[in-house]
Amino acid sequence: MTSENEAKLTPKGPRRSLSGIKPTGFPHLGNYLGMIRPAIDLQEDYEAFYFVADYHALTSVRDPQALRDSVYQITAYFLAFGLDPARAAFFRQSDIPEVTELTWLLSCVTHMGLLERAHAYKAAKDQGIEKEINHGVFTYPVLMASDILIYDSEVVPVGADQIQHIEMTRDMAQKFNAAFGGDFLRLPEARVREDVATVPGIDGRKMSKSYGNIIEPLLPPKKLRKQIMKIETDSKGLDEPKDPSTCTVVTLYKLFASKEEVAEMEENYRRGGYGYGHAKQALFEAMDAHFSPFREKYEAIIDDRDYLDQILDEGAEKVRPIVEDVMARVRRATGLRR
Amino acid sequence: MTSENEAKLTPKGPRRSLSGIKPTGFPHLGNYLGMIRPAIDLQEDYEAFYFVADYHALTSVRDPQALRDSVYQITAYFLAFGLDPARAAFFRQSDIPEVTELTWLLSCVTHMGLLERAHAYKAAKDQGIEKEINHGVFTYPVLMASDILIYDSEVVPVGADQIQHIEMTRDMAQKFNAAFGGDFLRLPEARVREDVATVPGIDGRKMSKSYGNIIEPLLPPKKLRKQIMKIETDSKGLDEPKDPSTCTVVTLYKLFASKEEVAEMEENYRRGGYGYGHAKQALFEAMDAHFSPFREKYEAIIDDRDYLDQILDEGAEKVRPIVEDVMARVRRATGLRR
Repeated sequence: MTSENEAKLTPKGPRRSLSGIKPTGFPHLGNYLGMIRPAIDLQEDYEAFYFVADYHALTSVRDPQALRDSVYQITAYFLAFGLDPARAAFFRQSDIPEVTELTWLLSCVTHMGLLERAHAYKAAKDQGIEKEINHGVFTYPVLMASDILIYDSEVVPVGADQIQHIEMTRDMAQKFNAAFGGDFLRLPEARVREDVATVPGIDGRKMSKSYGNIIEPLLPPKKLRKQIMKIETDSKGLDEPKDPSTCTVVTLYKLFASKEEVAEMEENYRRGGYGYGHAKQALFEAMDAHFSPFREKYEAIIDDRDYLDQILDEGAEKVRPIVEDVMARVRRATGLRR
Repeated sequence: MTSENEAKLTPKGPRRSLSGIKPTGFPHLGNYLGMIRPAIDLQEDYEAFYFVADYHALTSVRDPQALRDSVYQITAYFLAFGLDPARAAFFRQSDIPEVTELTWLLSCVTHMGLLERAHAYKAAKDQGIEKEINHGVFTYPVLMASDILIYDSEVVPVGADQIQHIEMTRDMAQKFNAAFGGDFLRLPEARVREDVATVPGIDGRKMSKSYGNIIEPLLPPKKLRKQIMKIETDSKGLDEPKDPSTCTVVTLYKLFASKEEVAEMEENYRRGGYGYGHAKQALFEAMDAHFSPFREKYEAIIDDRDYLDQILDEGAEKVRPIVEDVMARVRRATGLRR
């Protein structure tokens, strides 16, 4: 390694984790339990960085106001649930436009074959006309690698279906380091999230916006109750005994009620004389009790866009020195002057 | 068009031309006559912008020092041949990193099919293993479109083989404007360069670095003479009459000698008693006389990197307000805050 190419990695502090959050509107219960809660918990053990992926959203979003609103919603959501901006950094992807520059540099060392193997691109090809897929969808794994590498991230929490992205990121970093002869980019590790029990939607299938079966826990109580009352059950009458092990209401109730409360509901099911309306009311009350403090926090800040901008700006300022350090390394490595 | 999306195009001044120059080392006579001279002449009639395409070079260059040197060489070359930094703007592509951000935004509205039709990508596929082509080569038309659009360029001088790039650029700008509902990006026009007579190399084929048949006009006289002496001719002896119409030496001589001088050389060829060595010496003298003032200027500045940096920095500063205006338009259009 020549002195020209000598790479300086930032010194080891607490391990740094990176989470990217796509701004796709008001999160539902499945998003909350599957991604948001575990992501917020990272701040306890890591130097936790979070970015709202507004560049990424543009592979599909064509409504500027919807995009702006989504960024504020997800920011307020994280803050309401306890994201601590004093410990963590929470920022807009587009406030670090250098990620697009690093994307270009990585593109120059990334084979087409690697990107053609990406799951998301293959899925898009299976669903539509190959030639009409937009290039952003194809490039996206490079942008994601750039997002990870530009913060010298050490740990990236992912679901099992996203391990490929981390492998591709490591591959690109290795290719870059090999092409320019130095340890310029730090190789991240995947931290695979343990399987959260799948959260069922109101039709019993996995909760998903695309199925139209979601429950949004921070809605005002009346609206939340309305969503819960729509949970599909079988058609057993009030008096008939019911099977708690196959009922979506019970599955959801278990997430918010104590063991004793769950046992009591199960007993009521088996005994009969307890209708699905009763069970749904109990679920609503448990969820409302659980979520009302978070809802109050959310409602107190969602319209204070100056405050939310300030949080986002401070987040970006916090990560900026790291970005400048990494970009100085790769610009020097490649021969771009700065 | 809503007020949110209302696009402000910069007011019409003198028409703005944009030229990109790939830094690939010391230019040869073919580069000079085919591209550099016509490019410099644009400053007479246009608000002429020139960028040295260092990002683009990274699709192939892996030697940082070579890239840095090439940028300085091409800058000194343009200055030596009369590029006037007071009138034009001459700058590094990478000093406007926003081009990579606009590249991402354009990628999100560009179909894969468009990029698959690009000549350069198709040529790369024909020459190598498709999966091993780097993604930079595939993305390059998007970067080029971004390079053009980010300066609200009106006119882009191109060779006939590059018209496709301008068509693709117009297509991307139209797709972006349609997707976000406004005239955010200005559609450029191609100005097709009239065919310069092909400059033959020392083996009679088109002069090209890849053929190893180049003449570099700014070389020190001894070296220039050596290149000229290597021009291939037929094996006719000194006394024999020769055919001036098929001789590379005469073809090149015509580029630098007066009509009378050319007529005299042709007469000498036909008459005989005039060897190829004489003709080459005459060519050398004509070229040396033509190029020596430019060579002196080049040699006076090539090692003054502070001066060259200053020229490049001032060029970037000159175009920056335009870039900020265009980027503000597209960020507002897409819903990215800034």
